[in-house]
Amino acid sequence: MAASTASRLSPPRFRAPSPSPHPPIRRSRFSPVRAAKLEAVLSIGTHLIPHPRKAASGGEDAFFANSNAGGVFAIADGVSGWAEKDVNPALFSRELMRNSSNFLNNEEVSRDPQILLRKAHAATSSIGSATVIIAKLEKTGTLKIASVGDCGLKVIRKGQVMFSISPQEHYFDCPYQISSEAVGQTYQDALVCSVNLMEGDIIVSGSDGLFDNIFDQEIVSIISESPGVHEAAKVLAELARKHSVDVTFDSPYSMEARSRGFDVPWWKKILGAKLIGGKMDDITVIVAQVKTVVVPEDEGGDTEEQKGNEQGAAAVVASAE
Amino acid sequence: MAASTASRLSPPRFRAPSPSPHPPIRRSRFSPVRAAKLEAVLSIGTHLIPHPRKAASGGEDAFFANSNAGGVFAIADGVSGWAEKDVNPALFSRELMRNSSNFLNNEEVSRDPQILLRKAHAATSSIGSATVIIAKLEKTGTLKIASVGDCGLKVIRKGQVMFSISPQEHYFDCPYQISSEAVGQTYQDALVCSVNLMEGDIIVSGSDGLFDNIFDQEIVSIISESPGVHEAAKVLAELARKHSVDVTFDSPYSMEARSRGFDVPWWKKILGAKLIGGKMDDITVIVAQVKTVVVPEDEGGDTEEQKGNEQGAAAVVASAE
Repeated sequence: MAASTASRLSPPRFRAPSPSPHPPIRRSRFSPVRAAKLEAVLSIGTHLIPHPRKAASGGEDAFFANSNAGGVFAIADGVSGWAEKDVNPALFSRELMRNSSNFLNNEEVSRDPQILLRKAHAATSSIGSATVIIAKLEKTGTLKIASVGDCGLKVIRKGQVMFSISPQEHYFDCPYQISSEAVGQTYQDALVCSVNLMEGDIIVSGSDGLFDNIFDQEIVSIISESPGVHEAAKVLAELARKHSVDVTFDSPYSMEARSRGFDVPWWKKILGAKLIGGKMDDITVIVAQVKTVVVPEDEGGDTEEQKGNEQGAAAVVASAE
Repeated sequence: MAASTASRLSPPRFRAPSPSPHPPIRRSRFSPVRAAKLEAVLSIGTHLIPHPRKAASGGEDAFFANSNAGGVFAIADGVSGWAEKDVNPALFSRELMRNSSNFLNNEEVSRDPQILLRKAHAATSSIGSATVIIAKLEKTGTLKIASVGDCGLKVIRKGQVMFSISPQEHYFDCPYQISSEAVGQTYQDALVCSVNLMEGDIIVSGSDGLFDNIFDQEIVSIISESPGVHEAAKVLAELARKHSVDVTFDSPYSMEARSRGFDVPWWKKILGAKLIGGKMDDITVIVAQVKTVVVPEDEGGDTEEQKGNEQGAAAVVASAE
């Protein structure tokens, strides 16, 4: 009954009267002599830990991150079922990420992750399939996202998850996937969304190996204690890895499995057993923080294409091969 | 261990080879004689059930919905704590919704729910505070959202929740709120995001009285069985109402309370009791479906402002007073 009778409280009186401790990113003129404006950029940290049994081959996740071009990153998680068909599941995800990085300079994709996904997919010739997420920060602070499958992305502001994308799946453990086969999904099936970010916001993105093994509260706690994005990505990946091999950990993955009706055999259930444990998987983590940089007004005339061309060489494509 | 060894499946072979059963909304020319294009519009159903003890006064939720202007709706949930200060919590939420509806025709707000929120808030003179969500569908199929607090919005596509917004709160049961006091939140604190929708997508939005009392699986199930948006809104509100007064129902609200460390007193816990039950509250439900309409190309020249002026009179502002 306590829950049903609890009532909302009026605004707490102890808060400072500042209307907005995190002002939105906006144009601002600093000097009467030389005009300048603020632009949003991402500071990006990454960490990848392959599946324990796939450490030698580097696993099947791949990613790229480019913090120079305003900020863009992507993750592809190769679908492991292809190994049963004697196809290396890593080839497709790695080629998809290489192609995504190559198309960053393309005029048509400069502001649209979904078009980038379309072009990268069309250029990929490997057999296989992968879940994929691509996210790009505009100078104005808008993060544009295209996602197919169950790679995750959360935004943390003032110690809470304020934005999160939902996974897409055919059924439990079979996510939507970009594929070499016509039966798979395409850019048209992507979840395409955007969220307006503020200075200081933290983006945590990863393959399902991260979000299947770690709870939101743990993510928020690690982010609040980390000195920077690189350290945060490493600590998140290591905690997810620790949980993933812990057969006694009641992970988000095992909780989800039980809620979908999966369970241990009846005779184990009688003995008090329940479906529990982490999920061993490749774990890719990208942590990005929104910062603002001051740009002289006369440099603001750069087209997106020009910037892309200048900075294309700085793109990093990575897997754990 | 079962959970940790499960592996992903390759793409199911039984799916039809159609690359996209729900093609994205796009321009399309139907006739060589008379050009036409497709525009996205919302078909909207609404239902409001006040808190059982507030039925006589109509409760403290208010909303507006306008399906003529492409599709826009808003919900405000008055913060009940104001009653302790002898302020009627319904006055603020109702005035905020009236003002939001009045500003729909305003040139500056035509495409931006956050600016609409700023103007409506500035024009509201009642004492009080409210959580609020405003959502507007663009002709291109992009749904733009501005939200302060814990009103919810989910998008259902092909039988699954494919997009969902996160609540913002100071602490458990004290959401961010637009307020008459300087200490409250403003449009600058809003979660501002957008999602690209397709024909057939269903939006389910509501005050926390809906989402505290009903699970995603129930929402998806009701949506799949409802003949239309009006019926779906009514059935969702009635099920949430039923759960809200059921002291034996393990609601999303009671599960969240327990996960935050709230519980029954220790002496009840020893007897096997746990914090459980629905949450009695005002329940507002808005269900909207994305449809496409064929518009002759020569009518497409209407500016947003012109359309707004034509259709402003069709806006409906409602509460249960």
